[in-house]
Amino acid sequence: MSERYELYYWPGIQGRGEFVRLALEEAGAEYVDVARLPKEQGGGVPAIMNVLASTAMTPFAPPVLKIGDRLVAQTALILHVLGPRLGLSPADEPSRIFLHQVQLTIADFADEAHDTHHPIGSSLYYEDQKPEALRRTKEFIEHRMPKFLGYLERVLATNGGDHLVGSALTYADLSVFQLLAGLEYALPRAFSAYLPKIPGLRGLADRVAKRPRIAAYVASPRRIPFNEHGLFRRYPELDTP
Amino acid sequence: MSERYELYYWPGIQGRGEFVRLALEEAGAEYVDVARLPKEQGGGVPAIMNVLASTAMTPFAPPVLKIGDRLVAQTALILHVLGPRLGLSPADEPSRIFLHQVQLTIADFADEAHDTHHPIGSSLYYEDQKPEALRRTKEFIEHRMPKFLGYLERVLATNGGDHLVGSALTYADLSVFQLLAGLEYALPRAFSAYLPKIPGLRGLADRVAKRPRIAAYVASPRRIPFNEHGLFRRYPELDTP
Repeated sequence: MSERYELYYWPGIQGRGEFVRLALEEAGAEYVDVARLPKEQGGGVPAIMNVLASTAMTPFAPPVLKIGDRLVAQTALILHVLGPRLGLSPADEPSRIFLHQVQLTIADFADEAHDTHHPIGSSLYYEDQKPEALRRTKEFIEHRMPKFLGYLERVLATNGGDHLVGSALTYADLSVFQLLAGLEYALPRAFSAYLPKIPGLRGLADRVAKRPRIAAYVASPRRIPFNEHGLFRRYPELDTP
Repeated sequence: MSERYELYYWPGIQGRGEFVRLALEEAGAEYVDVARLPKEQGGGVPAIMNVLASTAMTPFAPPVLKIGDRLVAQTALILHVLGPRLGLSPADEPSRIFLHQVQLTIADFADEAHDTHHPIGSSLYYEDQKPEALRRTKEFIEHRMPKFLGYLERVLATNGGDHLVGSALTYADLSVFQLLAGLEYALPRAFSAYLPKIPGLRGLADRVAKRPRIAAYVASPRRIPFNEHGLFRRYPELDTP
């Protein structure tokens, strides 16, 4: 368990990388958030470009995790590989696969949260797709957010209410904390109106927030604040009135 | 290898289920495409609704594969679980993880192909989001399709050109065939203009198309034709002029 990890992710945002950071922090893992180092120490965006140019196990996009000489990309897959190493996955294989399935659904939900402010394309600014963002966010608030959160609430309830999968904390529980924090940041009015329907997830997120290592991480400068460059962005005009 | 599989997917479209069907067909696996059975034999959409209502290993959405008493959802994860069982994955674990990573990237690409015609939301008709679809498809053709296909071409080339991962056919090779067929159907002009840039992928798709079981499947009534309800849809106004 003395493995050392290198995370490659955009240095100015929580983004998809935050799901990985939370798992590493909860486990007290030894890791370097490479792109957040100064350039003279091998950090910055060039470090990410360098890893994307790899000719072995080539990643498509960050986050990328380096484990020894292996590269792993795709957020949910990184967590699937990390889970057993960090003690954040159940022991049996069918439960690990189901946990991965739930995390892939969380990843889909995160993608849709991103697309609320970028429904046309990531190469364009938000300001250049605002009318479309208004329509898409309305759909997200009315249909997609309830569908995804309702699903996760149901998975949690059928598993007894303490954890999404298995009988101990997993990386998906940490991701629920991140999802709820992100939605509360991005769409405070719509999210607070929906919150009474997901008491289980709310309780889980509260318990995660109180875990000593998570609380210490969130209070530290290692936790990048939410901002208008990441996955969850606060554009008040997109929220319900 | 005498396992019997049950696939649960929308009966009228290729959609995401097709990536799974191609793997099952190539392997000559014994499977039932449950929702395509008549309702009196337990088929139709109610069969899908029934499996989504499961209280164990609850899936969020189809496709869902039943293996014995296990349910697995999320297209790329189904393939990851099926791969070793069907002989469509490399033997070593790091290669299997990389293969899964490539398939997850293919899944992201397929999602973006879908969103070209549904950039605002799946609960609305295409006709109700046409101006947005025009803008999003332009972005897709100019930026996203070249980025994803360029990535896959590079992965194929660095692996020697015969297969995306490892030294034998995998489910990701089959998925390349499906991706290229889908893009050619949906955006014939834009795709044919781009095709000269991906000779490796084109050759791979051609080799897959000639495999006896794939050729027999594609010629059979089991292969649902492309149509305007699936992932890849032909709306000529979205294609380049």
